[in-house]
Amino acid sequence: MAQQPAKPPSRRKAVRLPVVKSAAAGAVEDLVAVEEPLEIRLAGETVAVIMRTPGDDHLLALGYLFGEGILSGGQDASAIAHCGRLGDPGYGNVIDVAPAAGGQVDWERLEASRRGGVTSSACGVCGRGAVEDLLAGIAPLPAGPAITAASVGRAMERLGQHQPTFDATGGTHAAALWDTEGALVAAHEDVGRHNAVDKVVGALLLARAAGATVTPAVLAMSGRGGFEIVQKAARAGVPVVACVSAPTTLAVEVAQAAGVTLCAFVRRGRMNVYAHAERLVGLGASTT
Amino acid sequence: MAQQPAKPPSRRKAVRLPVVKSAAAGAVEDLVAVEEPLEIRLAGETVAVIMRTPGDDHLLALGYLFGEGILSGGQDASAIAHCGRLGDPGYGNVIDVAPAAGGQVDWERLEASRRGGVTSSACGVCGRGAVEDLLAGIAPLPAGPAITAASVGRAMERLGQHQPTFDATGGTHAAALWDTEGALVAAHEDVGRHNAVDKVVGALLLARAAGATVTPAVLAMSGRGGFEIVQKAARAGVPVVACVSAPTTLAVEVAQAAGVTLCAFVRRGRMNVYAHAERLVGLGASTT
Repeated sequence: MAQQPAKPPSRRKAVRLPVVKSAAAGAVEDLVAVEEPLEIRLAGETVAVIMRTPGDDHLLALGYLFGEGILSGGQDASAIAHCGRLGDPGYGNVIDVAPAAGGQVDWERLEASRRGGVTSSACGVCGRGAVEDLLAGIAPLPAGPAITAASVGRAMERLGQHQPTFDATGGTHAAALWDTEGALVAAHEDVGRHNAVDKVVGALLLARAAGATVTPAVLAMSGRGGFEIVQKAARAGVPVVACVSAPTTLAVEVAQAAGVTLCAFVRRGRMNVYAHAERLVGLGASTT
Repeated sequence: MAQQPAKPPSRRKAVRLPVVKSAAAGAVEDLVAVEEPLEIRLAGETVAVIMRTPGDDHLLALGYLFGEGILSGGQDASAIAHCGRLGDPGYGNVIDVAPAAGGQVDWERLEASRRGGVTSSACGVCGRGAVEDLLAGIAPLPAGPAITAASVGRAMERLGQHQPTFDATGGTHAAALWDTEGALVAAHEDVGRHNAVDKVVGALLLARAAGATVTPAVLAMSGRGGFEIVQKAARAGVPVVACVSAPTTLAVEVAQAAGVTLCAFVRRGRMNVYAHAERLVGLGASTT
């Protein structure tokens, strides 16, 4: 890369940019959601470069490595820190996770993760294999706990209270995790839907590593229900995924196989349940 | 992978799945957008496995390889066909692109593409490099052609007429390309936003390879304006990208550097223009 004066990365989630609006004369300014690259390293080795909204990068790194099956929990990391020094060009866009002494690191999964989706034809292309591949290393969730349909509806309603960047920009997704008591575990926004989930899962892992007992119940998501969201929820032991919008067939298949309750079109006190509806109590009744 | 009876892949864009609706007693059925893996090969070598909505896989494969910079146009391919035979397990989920005699294949870009985002710290993490990296090998678009703001609004309005799968499922994105005469070049739906664009670009490349003169004007997109969409548009020589929802800072930066006009929040006759508004005529006037 050419030696050029580097622009310091923004630590803000939204910045003002010039815009020309059809409805207004001349250029004005508009808040736009920030998207910048983050290089995630494990023990100094590059695992991935992802585009994300800055902030809570330590949670994102931990959640990402867990979601990829490289770490098995927060206890596998001893320290997570941005590389370099404040003021360095690009400071804040490289983060390193130091493995804990005795922590588990799956180096084979790390190599597989670095290869991305390219794993020859063993990657689900034969129709049946896709779900098995996506759930490799993830145990199906046991039955229960019983969760009320009303609490799923409430989780989605309250998600809106945790979307300040979306309110300002319209450009971010959000994920929020609620426990079986209806208390918020974590809520995060990001331009990347998966990043928002990784940040929430990272927060769950950190809480557990610090000794807290957290029983996750409902992961509420803006947007659609993709298979990756269900996959990440299953790995984190979250029994219910609730999405504002539609699921895909693969998300439904992954949810069925993983024992995850998949609720979609969760809006205005209604929802459609595409997998494991038996976990929900009071689904027939009004959830408003 | 264990030897198991393979489920034949669906060739449908949407399938009926059981669903439990809070608003209805008992289980009913619901149309859900199909998402299945596709392995893209070039000369028999695996390039990527992506999740997509089945249909128009040849356009997706061509558009993907072009978007990654591996092929420079439709003339670089001699044939594109699903591997195996109809009736084979998984038939339709592996597609091979045969390079044309004398066609250009950038094998270095293929290797880079296979590595995914993992390209050490040369991948834009130092703040300034990101846009340059994302536009490597893409020449900035020249000024012009002049395009009316009204035609951008119309392109978006007419996008809705090309979303039958979305109308049935709520689960797919859509992209449509219009030429400078306001004629439709191609419109496609897919669970993956990038796939929809790749299919549209693949159609453009095929038309050009067949000798048609197409002057692309407006790429209309459902959803948000991500940097990948702008990147793909720039590479395909599409001067205007119009999105229903918000852009990100990286999308704006890529559009500015690539000479692409980026319109977002294109709704109800209004729009915000975040880059190269000078290409639009009549922006101040009502576009309804």
